Amino acid sequence: MTEALQNQTVNARIGEGRKIILGFSGGLDTSFCVKYLHDDLGFEVHSIIVNTGGFTKEELEGIKEHAYRLGVKSHTTVDAVKIYYERIIKFLVFGNVLKNNTYPLSVSAERLIQALHIADHVKELNADAVAHGSTGAGNDQVRFDMVFHNVIPGIPILTPIRDLRLSREQEIEYLKEKGVEMNFEKAAYSINKGLWGTSVGGRETLNSRGTLPEDAWPTQVTKSDTEEVKLHFQKGELKGVNDKEFPHPVEAIQYLQSLAGPYGIGRDIHVGDTIIGIKGRVGFEAAAPMIIIKAHHALEKHVLTKWQLAYKDQLSQFYGTWLHEGQILDPVMRDIEAFFSSTQQQVTGDVYVQLNPYRFSVNGIESPYDLMSKKFGSYGEMNTGWSGEDVRGFSKIFGNQTSIYFGVKDEVEGKSI
Amino acid sequence: MTEALQNQTVNARIGEGRKIILGFSGGLDTSFCVKYLHDDLGFEVHSIIVNTGGFTKEELEGIKEHAYRLGVKSHTTVDAVKIYYERIIKFLVFGNVLKNNTYPLSVSAERLIQALHIADHVKELNADAVAHGSTGAGNDQVRFDMVFHNVIPGIPILTPIRDLRLSREQEIEYLKEKGVEMNFEKAAYSINKGLWGTSVGGRETLNSRGTLPEDAWPTQVTKSDTEEVKLHFQKGELKGVNDKEFPHPVEAIQYLQSLAGPYGIGRDIHVGDTIIGIKGRVGFEAAAPMIIIKAHHALEKHVLTKWQLAYKDQLSQFYGTWLHEGQILDPVMRDIEAFFSSTQQQVTGDVYVQLNPYRFSVNGIESPYDLMSKKFGSYGEMNTGWSGEDVRGFSKIFGNQTSIYFGVKDEVEGKSI
Amino acid sequence: MTEALQNQTVNARIGEGRKIILGFSGGLDTSFCVKYLHDDLGFEVHSIIVNTGGFTKEELEGIKEHAYRLGVKSHTTVDAVKIYYERIIKFLVFGNVLKNNTYPLSVSAERLIQALHIADHVKELNADAVAHGSTGAGNDQVRFDMVFHNVIPGIPILTPIRDLRLSREQEIEYLKEKGVEMNFEKAAYSINKGLWGTSVGGRETLNSRGTLPEDAWPTQVTKSDTEEVKLHFQKGELKGVNDKEFPHPVEAIQYLQSLAGPYGIGRDIHVGDTIIGIKGRVGFEAAAPMIIIKAHHALEKHVLTKWQLAYKDQLSQFYGTWLHEGQILDPVMRDIEAFFSSTQQQVTGDVYVQLNPYRFSVNGIESPYDLMSKKFGSYGEMNTGWSGEDVRGFSKIFGNQTSIYFGVKDEVEGKSI
Amino acid sequence: MTEALQNQTVNARIGEGRKIILGFSGGLDTSFCVKYLHDDLGFEVHSIIVNTGGFTKEELEGIKEHAYRLGVKSHTTVDAVKIYYERIIKFLVFGNVLKNNTYPLSVSAERLIQALHIADHVKELNADAVAHGSTGAGNDQVRFDMVFHNVIPGIPILTPIRDLRLSREQEIEYLKEKGVEMNFEKAAYSINKGLWGTSVGGRETLNSRGTLPEDAWPTQVTKSDTEEVKLHFQKGELKGVNDKEFPHPVEAIQYLQSLAGPYGIGRDIHVGDTIIGIKGRVGFEAAAPMIIIKAHHALEKHVLTKWQLAYKDQLSQFYGTWLHEGQILDPVMRDIEAFFSSTQQQVTGDVYVQLNPYRFSVNGIESPYDLMSKKFGSYGEMNTGWSGEDVRGFSKIFGNQTSIYFGVKDEVEGKSI
Repeated sequence: MTEALQNQTVNARIGEGRKIILGFSGGLDTSFCVKYLHDDLGFEVHSIIVNTGGFTKEELEGIKEHAYRLGVKSHTTVDAVKIYYERIIKFLVFGNVLKNNTYPLSVSAERLIQALHIADHVKELNADAVAHGSTGAGNDQVRFDMVFHNVIPGIPILTPIRDLRLSREQEIEYLKEKGVEMNFEKAAYSINKGLWGTSVGGRETLNSRGTLPEDAWPTQVTKSDTEEVKLHFQKGELKGVNDKEFPHPVEAIQYLQSLAGPYGIGRDIHVGDTIIGIKGRVGFEAAAPMIIIKAHHALEKHVLTKWQLAYKDQLSQFYGTWLHEGQILDPVMRDIEAFFSSTQQQVTGDVYVQLNPYRFSVNGIESPYDLMSKKFGSYGEMNTGWSGEDVRGFSKIFGNQTSIYFGVKDEVEGKSI
Repeated sequence: MTEALQNQTVNARIGEGRKIILGFSGGLDTSFCVKYLHDDLGFEVHSIIVNTGGFTKEELEGIKEHAYRLGVKSHTTVDAVKIYYERIIKFLVFGNVLKNNTYPLSVSAERLIQALHIADHVKELNADAVAHGSTGAGNDQVRFDMVFHNVIPGIPILTPIRDLRLSREQEIEYLKEKGVEMNFEKAAYSINKGLWGTSVGGRETLNSRGTLPEDAWPTQVTKSDTEEVKLHFQKGELKGVNDKEFPHPVEAIQYLQSLAGPYGIGRDIHVGDTIIGIKGRVGFEAAAPMIIIKAHHALEKHVLTKWQLAYKDQLSQFYGTWLHEGQILDPVMRDIEAFFSSTQQQVTGDVYVQLNPYRFSVNGIESPYDLMSKKFGSYGEMNTGWSGEDVRGFSKIFGNQTSIYFGVKDEVEGKSI
Repeated sequence: MTEALQNQTVNARIGEGRKIILGFSGGLDTSFCVKYLHDDLGFEVHSIIVNTGGFTKEELEGIKEHAYRLGVKSHTTVDAVKIYYERIIKFLVFGNVLKNNTYPLSVSAERLIQALHIADHVKELNADAVAHGSTGAGNDQVRFDMVFHNVIPGIPILTPIRDLRLSREQEIEYLKEKGVEMNFEKAAYSINKGLWGTSVGGRETLNSRGTLPEDAWPTQVTKSDTEEVKLHFQKGELKGVNDKEFPHPVEAIQYLQSLAGPYGIGRDIHVGDTIIGIKGRVGFEAAAPMIIIKAHHALEKHVLTKWQLAYKDQLSQFYGTWLHEGQILDPVMRDIEAFFSSTQQQVTGDVYVQLNPYRFSVNGIESPYDLMSKKFGSYGEMNTGWSGEDVRGFSKIFGNQTSIYFGVKDEVEGKSI
Repeated sequence: MTEALQNQTVNARIGEGRKIILGFSGGLDTSFCVKYLHDDLGFEVHSIIVNTGGFTKEELEGIKEHAYRLGVKSHTTVDAVKIYYERIIKFLVFGNVLKNNTYPLSVSAERLIQALHIADHVKELNADAVAHGSTGAGNDQVRFDMVFHNVIPGIPILTPIRDLRLSREQEIEYLKEKGVEMNFEKAAYSINKGLWGTSVGGRETLNSRGTLPEDAWPTQVTKSDTEEVKLHFQKGELKGVNDKEFPHPVEAIQYLQSLAGPYGIGRDIHVGDTIIGIKGRVGFEAAAPMIIIKAHHALEKHVLTKWQLAYKDQLSQFYGTWLHEGQILDPVMRDIEAFFSSTQQQVTGDVYVQLNPYRFSVNGIESPYDLMSKKFGSYGEMNTGWSGEDVRGFSKIFGNQTSIYFGVKDEVEGKSI
């Protein structure tokens, strides 16, 4: 046993007779947590995995078996895809939210839904403690901590990986000593998959320069032709693709992903501000999310007024950042969602999107609420609704204050613009 | 002569013995203006063309000869490319300004520089009036009107095209009657070219659906390979490309355009709010501008702090809109430029961009000011600057107010989150 | 008849056989309008007055009689106080809206409600035209015009006062010629009274310097003592005063006004940007509105989170300006109202306000939702919810990015902060 | 010795042979720190007091003597009033910064200047550690910590009061044991005085309800008459009062304070969000700051354009909050200051302010840059610069988009507004 662990376990067995809920993914870190919490600290461990769209049924089954083999008292699998959509993704679409105009915030959003479900599980099982497997070096620790402080205040939060600062090798040694059998190989790239995109981190993203090699992308490019898809939005939500209606937007998203993913669309690298102040860089692929956001925005540009678009942008920027930083429960988020929902009443119509290998383009929209209505005047053509004389008056008044400004300034300073 | 003109000329010859300055492009509308202002209204016409990067030397020479053939007293050609960069483009780069996150504002920006030069010319020649050839249906009329009201208040603004509401055919008939020889054919697409992009309007952009056909794009795609270019920024300005330094950013932009244009990069269709309240749609190609803005933004994401990025975004949105609406002389624009300039002090470094047919991607950056410095901690790896324990404290305090919020709420309402 | 009128009437009798709705206040301008529209233009005139809280029953009766004496076909009196509250005042309270941090926007808000009712009347009576009595020099003309364009597009808007540019003396002469008997004396101060305040314009407000004399204020100071009032808010609305509950907030506002008005509270002079670009200055007294907004804000500072307060401020500024500029029907206003309403769910409690001659102060609040709860820690005292060690960690992480910024900068530039 | 101290000192004498800089006020907490750092931990203690306008020469002399009696190796007194003005107060005036529209941020601003000087002193003396006397329950600890992390990264920060969690009584016992003689009586109200205001905390401010009693205010009301003062601003800075010019704005502020303070002007109670998430309430008196900010804002309302005023407001809100939270060194603050400075170029003129017991009012302004210039049109009077016809056109275009919005909506939904 490593020295760090030996020191730690001096005052251990703190979990004796106590229940703990552990967010569990089946990977090395959370496998270590099960053993450590149970064997060394004495907790009755209840693991939970919250699927936000990244796991297949088979994978979830395998994780469950692995959990029980590790010695959990119970293991719970939550299918949270629809609630994930309803509580977060929907508003990311309404707000066209892309962090720093780039990243669809997939991981940030998933962690929060997971944390919320874990906290609920603590309450359901009336557990004495909660644990997550985050390290002390990233964003996720803050998201889990904060949601737990908000929803289950006072419940102790155990974070063995953060606290023990073990290396990967130490964790493996520990698990092997305990007789645990699992795949201990380190993948070249760490992948996080969910409904709203897949993040890819690796050697190249640890530096400021360099992009991911072709084979690092989870979805390989297998389509080389081009196709036009038609997206149908109702009050801002994707309800149909290519005249196929779906019972729930989640299914429409998944269907669009199946069409667009093989083009390698929506790949990018994001560098951004972590919650803890350093800059972080990560690759991601998100075909459906990027297409949906751009298509939705195109539709909005046709049906919303100038200031609706402007204030949506302002609020979206903050909404995305605050979500990213784990503040999903701040009531200001509900207020912004009320704003967003109000704006979507007429965001209904079809958007035509051309898919090509590695890129897509929005070809246009059709909407009964299209403000670019021929009936009310066409840009660059003579109109019936108003006259050039009206615009002449408008220009005079619209520029009036600046004219006065320069008139006054010239008088004082005796010079012109 | 058309009836509209006949009515108009009842009280004509108002220009007898008076000088007028006319913004002149050599096209049908402004050619009509020369004849009408001179022959019908009696003005001494002084034409001026302000080149913002869209005309070749030969084209400018041809326009000059055409102006004199039409009967202007003098014709002036202004090479405004560098002043256009210094007064506007520079700040559009600093602010990463894209209207509705799409359009680099090329036409908007050009009109203002043109209007400013025309107004100066009025003062230089001590002219009695000024004229522009805008119709009553678009944005340009407002931009010219407003700059003229601000810079040369009280000088009458004549707008024959807006006021007479002539059809294209009527203008041609009039000019033919006057014996004018020029190309009267209507191009299938109206093109406006300048340093910061080329706009393309036509049948497809008059509707909400439909994109431009391949052959409508002024720059045809002739490169099918891929290449990486290295852009060197100094304090936010593009100073070099591929280790080639340029005396002025304008030349760096033009060089980058020569490399990237043949890939068909930077093509898009923008739909946006015109100043007069209707929605307008226009195609554009802007290879260098799009690459520069995205590369500059990528560099900024590495060297600026979170709130510098956030406030730049907020101010950029307004800056772009206000410029678009012709309000370049509102002093608030100088204040925002002061903000932008302050942010650029450390925006120095190289950005690597991969060019491909129809698309490009930013591969990474190198900068001495890169905040993603290994020395101060790496995302996802253990750090020396702070500990997991520090983050544990941070999370507690960072989420404190929302925790209190729910604590108080639960007490009153007896329910949990 | 004046020359302006004679010219005008050349092509008159345009109203023959047509119905027109006229916003009518009973003053000189709108009295002139009745006569002019009916006698000279031939319209069947239907006058309407929309009371937003400034008129007594007796005054309204007198105005009605005056209208009929002038020759209207019908006269309608609308009691709009409650709808005025529900559609506008409520949101001005929710948003703590004060134009330029000073003016409660009383006149702006009233004009819009009046314009909306007038437009509705046009539709009800199926009228052929609409008229308002605004001059060409102020804000009101824009507000009426814009609401009419939005609600009754295509209906001609007649504005005799703006168009004929008659002097006060010319209007009087005209009315006397027509045998009209009314009070033609000009008041030293023009007063506009309503639920949300009374504006006062006069000689002093036409200049940048100088304040209104004591006797110019409509409400004279008759109380010299001091008293504490208790305001009860429920979800942001004033529902009670001094333990007296009111069926409707309008009545609570009026009752508070009766208590606070005689102290001369809420008097101020506002200088602001008119819609037409010039600066305008106006005195106002608004005891209840100022007290309500400040008390409401104090309560919010206790029950809302930091970012709720921050975004309310940002949106309020725009909301007030856009309302002021007549844009009440832009759907973005509904979106902001949705945001505001969402924030008010816990704005419930009592606020204690001390009234003194010419001033008031907020003494404190009591609310079940008060986040300054002893249970969760007291400012400046040791807390149980978190430790100094937590804050130590917080500070380190909270300042981390700026520390890195200077670390990087020092390395490049070899100098310290 | 208390148990907490005994535990603490197990591994003590960590300061043996090491220099520490201590921010020193002469009060109980920092007196304790000197003794503890020196006697128990073995540090060579160098105390420093940074005067931001709250101490008299005599007080500073007394504090110095007290420090030496406690056993410091050196004591330094810094007169930081002017640098305080130049680095912070100036921008608070430019931005009209009041936290939550109420509080002039006096304490927040002082702490930062103090922290910056203490950090500089650490570098000058090449000290091994730094200490401050903040508790673990307030804002100041974060401000000191953060500035130290930014300016002297890596230097250990000792915070005995925060770490030992001693009660007042324990500190006194400790000091008495050490033979320290000083005034150990607790004042009924804790007072913090500086150039930009005096804060007052006490029993009443620990609750949400209740205001300070008359005799708790440091400046008692001794003037009962009224007087008008004339404030002269140059480019946004107060340079003269009542035709008296001052060499430095600090002196103008102090002179104005001497005139207005005895009226009891500028007293208020602020409740706001602390950095650590709880709500805090504090009384303050700030006659000169409140008058200067309101007068400066009044002048700006006359000389700045609408959007200058609007964006100043938006940036000010953030600037104040970020300063309050100790983030003065974030480079975004320099960017905002560049914006502010740019706006002040024409903020020159006189403002007339009427002083009365407990209140003041702004009577008007005079400025060569006044945009409310008669020459360019008067509000409510007919103008020469433009016509009612111009405004008619303006209204049509200004409301055009919303008209189209309702036109489109009516067509789809078959109903009207």
